[in-house]
Amino acid sequence: MKHIAFVVYPGLTLLDLAGPLQVLSSMCERNREYGVVIVSKDGGAVDVDVPMKVVPGASFKNVLEPAVVVVPGGEAPTVKAMGDDELINYLKQVSVNAEYVCSVCTGSLILAAAGLLNGRQATTHWGCYKILEALGAKYVKRRWVQDEKFITSAGVSAGIDMALYLVSKLTDESTARNVQLGLEYEPEPPFGGIAWASVNRDRLTPYFRDRIKEYLADKPDIVDRVKGL
Amino acid sequence: MKHIAFVVYPGLTLLDLAGPLQVLSSMCERNREYGVVIVSKDGGAVDVDVPMKVVPGASFKNVLEPAVVVVPGGEAPTVKAMGDDELINYLKQVSVNAEYVCSVCTGSLILAAAGLLNGRQATTHWGCYKILEALGAKYVKRRWVQDEKFITSAGVSAGIDMALYLVSKLTDESTARNVQLGLEYEPEPPFGGIAWASVNRDRLTPYFRDRIKEYLADKPDIVDRVKGL
Repeated sequence: MKHIAFVVYPGLTLLDLAGPLQVLSSMCERNREYGVVIVSKDGGAVDVDVPMKVVPGASFKNVLEPAVVVVPGGEAPTVKAMGDDELINYLKQVSVNAEYVCSVCTGSLILAAAGLLNGRQATTHWGCYKILEALGAKYVKRRWVQDEKFITSAGVSAGIDMALYLVSKLTDESTARNVQLGLEYEPEPPFGGIAWASVNRDRLTPYFRDRIKEYLADKPDIVDRVKGL
Repeated sequence: MKHIAFVVYPGLTLLDLAGPLQVLSSMCERNREYGVVIVSKDGGAVDVDVPMKVVPGASFKNVLEPAVVVVPGGEAPTVKAMGDDELINYLKQVSVNAEYVCSVCTGSLILAAAGLLNGRQATTHWGCYKILEALGAKYVKRRWVQDEKFITSAGVSAGIDMALYLVSKLTDESTARNVQLGLEYEPEPPFGGIAWASVNRDRLTPYFRDRIKEYLADKPDIVDRVKGL
């Protein structure tokens, strides 16, 4: 069975994980060639950004050759994760042979910190586009962006859309539509779309820049890239 | 602080929980009058429908007067939960004083099994509408349905939309829009909407009817209601 590995780390945003995990798990019920697995460094319980813990099914060393890797994002804890050598080395290692390497929200900052998005088209949460660019990617403001095996998605909820696209790549459009039906994914945001004209997309940049300076002081290569922002 | 309690039980669908939990947790960051809490019968780790566990923050007896209750759904395990006296009694008890009692997907079947939706307008996953009606509710095919304090939502992903609506009721529309922006909830299903004309909405009825017969044999009042389906 081919593994679709969801990489968890302390403080991640739960929906970044749960959205694509539900979509891909639903695909696996329809296509037993694939199976989802949730992996953390040591397989132990992990705090998330809501008051509960997630107990993954495996540790990094149990899943060394996943076919697909998905990295969820988060806020300040995701910046800490960018400096976690064990996590970064795992991502560098498994991305070599993976068919797809994916991220949700600021998960793309972790991929960028691992050097995997250099010169690549990618996306992230709207509030982190300047950080992503400073780390070497070419930011594209889209719901999800594919550049060869790398598929990155926009903030939090965008992971669901990205995952449905990924299902169509791993299987076919008909399966993706069946997954969508099972999850009754026909969104109806009560107040319509986002009023982008009134959003200051730069306002979170200083916050993330300062967290990088604070948490990644031992990674001068990363700090140097963002300190001018 | 007013509690928004998410009730977890073995086998629930993760996204039914995680969608509204992320939305309401994000509201709580903006309005400290409320706080989310995840509760299970005994506070212990709970299996969900993907290969991981969820460790809640509290047990039923820790949260006896939540302001809001949210019940996620699932497949066969949700039918088992309909027969769990401790869970049903908890929901009956806390719903008396709660401001809102909410469900996602087949979570409404649990509310119905607790006798909370008798004669009320409600919704559920598209595949369970006949079961919901047999249990005494008036099914409405909408993304979410409010009948006084009871707010039920359609399948899985509908919990996100319902939760944004709930945020607007607990706070205001401006806060709901800010939460939506933070979660970048501007959905873009890759293959558009669901082709309802080609969906047989009755095809799952026998499956759920049979699970009710199988798991709730000691609840003849419930079995009697669905056996003619």
